[in-house]
Amino acid sequence: MKNIKLTLAYDGTNYHGFQEQRGTGLATIQEALEKALSTIAQTPIQVIGAGRTDAGVHAQGQVVNFRSEKWPVPAEKAPLALNVLLPGDIKVVKAEEVPMDFHARFSAVAKTYRYSIYHHRVMSPFHRYYCYHEPRRLDVNAMQEGAAYLLGTYDFKSFQAQGTPVKDTIRTIYRADIIEDAPVINLYLRGNGFLYNMVRIITGTLLNIGFGKIKPEDMVKIIESKNRTLAGTTAPPQGLCLMEVEY
Amino acid sequence: MKNIKLTLAYDGTNYHGFQEQRGTGLATIQEALEKALSTIAQTPIQVIGAGRTDAGVHAQGQVVNFRSEKWPVPAEKAPLALNVLLPGDIKVVKAEEVPMDFHARFSAVAKTYRYSIYHHRVMSPFHRYYCYHEPRRLDVNAMQEGAAYLLGTYDFKSFQAQGTPVKDTIRTIYRADIIEDAPVINLYLRGNGFLYNMVRIITGTLLNIGFGKIKPEDMVKIIESKNRTLAGTTAPPQGLCLMEVEY
Repeated sequence: MKNIKLTLAYDGTNYHGFQEQRGTGLATIQEALEKALSTIAQTPIQVIGAGRTDAGVHAQGQVVNFRSEKWPVPAEKAPLALNVLLPGDIKVVKAEEVPMDFHARFSAVAKTYRYSIYHHRVMSPFHRYYCYHEPRRLDVNAMQEGAAYLLGTYDFKSFQAQGTPVKDTIRTIYRADIIEDAPVINLYLRGNGFLYNMVRIITGTLLNIGFGKIKPEDMVKIIESKNRTLAGTTAPPQGLCLMEVEY
Repeated sequence: MKNIKLTLAYDGTNYHGFQEQRGTGLATIQEALEKALSTIAQTPIQVIGAGRTDAGVHAQGQVVNFRSEKWPVPAEKAPLALNVLLPGDIKVVKAEEVPMDFHARFSAVAKTYRYSIYHHRVMSPFHRYYCYHEPRRLDVNAMQEGAAYLLGTYDFKSFQAQGTPVKDTIRTIYRADIIEDAPVINLYLRGNGFLYNMVRIITGTLLNIGFGKIKPEDMVKIIESKNRTLAGTTAPPQGLCLMEVEY
């Protein structure tokens, strides 16, 4: 029995998210990957993903693992073998044999997401699937100030999509940086875990700060309120990219 | 009568090139643009492009002009009006009213193209439509040396696609830079004009230098030979982008 860890990059534009949706006929990243793995192993292989990504969300460092007795390819040769079979919008960047107890979801200690905003009057055709377009004036310094209030351990219930409750909404954010690479504004968030739509709701809230609708220090009140309606709207999926999963 | 100059950015992936191909039913940039212009003017409008781009080739600074007595929108408002009607992969970046004798093709004095090579073992899903993938070892310094031999005024017949002869194959290259932005290698060429497929054939030749198949100084012999078969193969379209047209 082998346990193989794969690091994936994918363009989520043409997929209904990462997770397999059995019987729906909708294309997912997991399904495409399992098809390629099963072709090589000549037996069905199922993967465990570090986390789901929604339809239209991208990844540069998604991680999955699978356990198999029949996997025939040495880890170092697996990316090449898999990339021949995978479509152009999904690539295996790295493959490693890991201890049997490695679990892509439960063993993860930190994840980094990036949210990208194309901040220009005219949207670039080359960024349309990878950025949210915001032509209005934005105070980027205020957004940076607001983001800094996210650092630390808090109950982030205000930033959880309604209707998808989890019991424990306490998370720790280690990094919350806004880096401008004009005309693109990138928000980087690194934390021990993220609630459903958390990065996109944080982005919507930081945009409200950028517009001057609310002040950077209002972030404290919004966190303390544990009230989703005080946070901003959910930013659209195409700006989001899962950059790294750490173990 | 007004003469309007438009600067366009487009993702050429889903088009059969810039130029209208009447009666073929194939989607082209020109056709999509003329449709939007004609909708606004409520009369057919035809544009003159600075140059054709092939299927799959992109532009960040293509220029067109059109003359019309019925164009109703002030130049400064034209981008917004047009971008509402245009598909997401074509955007008008700028519009200006210009003197009646301005002609997008004949008035051009220089063009800049970029050719992008994704130089990494695994192709990035995000670059698959915008770069040529080259996983093999490349000597980038040698490629830079080779590119420098292109600077100046020469007969570039060796770098012209066969079967598309023009009488005058003498062109002047003002800039020939290779700039590495790992893992992407960008070739920038600025000249007073380019022969058909010239940038892509130059790229193929510089790749041969990068592989060590030929030496940088062999560029001189290749130019002097005026023989297409001595130059490299034509690099694929998706790496090419028309960056700027100068007047």
